[in-house]
Amino acid sequence: MNIRPYISGYVDGEGCFSVSIRPRPKNNLGWEVIASFAVAQNKDRIQVLKLMKNYFGYGSLRRNITDNTMKYEVRSIKILTEKIIPHFKKYPLQSGRQKDVEIFSKICEKIKNQEHLTRKGLIKITKLRSRMSFVGNRIYTEKVILQSIK
Amino acid sequence: MNIRPYISGYVDGEGCFSVSIRPRPKNNLGWEVIASFAVAQNKDRIQVLKLMKNYFGYGSLRRNITDNTMKYEVRSIKILTEKIIPHFKKYPLQSGRQKDVEIFSKICEKIKNQEHLTRKGLIKITKLRSRMSFVGNRIYTEKVILQSIK
Repeated sequence: MNIRPYISGYVDGEGCFSVSIRPRPKNNLGWEVIASFAVAQNKDRIQVLKLMKNYFGYGSLRRNITDNTMKYEVRSIKILTEKIIPHFKKYPLQSGRQKDVEIFSKICEKIKNQEHLTRKGLIKITKLRSRMSFVGNRIYTEKVILQSIK
Repeated sequence: MNIRPYISGYVDGEGCFSVSIRPRPKNNLGWEVIASFAVAQNKDRIQVLKLMKNYFGYGSLRRNITDNTMKYEVRSIKILTEKIIPHFKKYPLQSGRQKDVEIFSKICEKIKNQEHLTRKGLIKITKLRSRMSFVGNRIYTEKVILQSIK
């Protein structure tokens, strides 16, 4: 069996591409941007997380003690742009979530080019992020961020 | 992209192989056995459910009004034994859940051979089912069923 589409199928159900924008008073603009690809799982399916870590050749596997789940996560922009995103362009998600991958890819390219450290780039990233799916309530909404960039 | 391993990956995260054993006073033994393969999903990923229905060429796609999810489900023993199970033998789940597929397969074979209608067969199916993963609390446990077979 070809494991590559298998991983995409698994991630379509269980994975998460997210961009976090958090206050960081020490930064020039007052905000920091963190891109993350993560898959969380009950311990009974840890094999798939190990398989992914092995396949991508990178990422951390950590236990979340509060809910006894395991999480595979990649935050390195280098690995995201060189390994993770190219995989999901070649083996795309078959659901509407592929839209998130496309936006995530654009944001990661901007971070790679250090654009998140410029006012113009941060505004663009913030607006792009608003177009991604998000479950829950954001503490720092687009409006809050745009109003308070230094 | 080969969609077959993709489907297995998706099902590893989101699918459910289950065997329900319920009281049915009219039946000879007082119980009925229903095998089911199901994948439930928020509406934003309905594409994958449609893709599965299309690929397996069978099954129902229904909306659960209470939580606004969609569910793809196959209960036909013919389709389970001829389409669904062979797929997951060729493109196995990479997690510990494949163990469930193996037990599910044994149970479906027994149902196909009408063994669930015999006392001996029903006892065997009930015991096999206890070895499958199950989240939640069963109303009709192995003990309850075995004690009350007519």
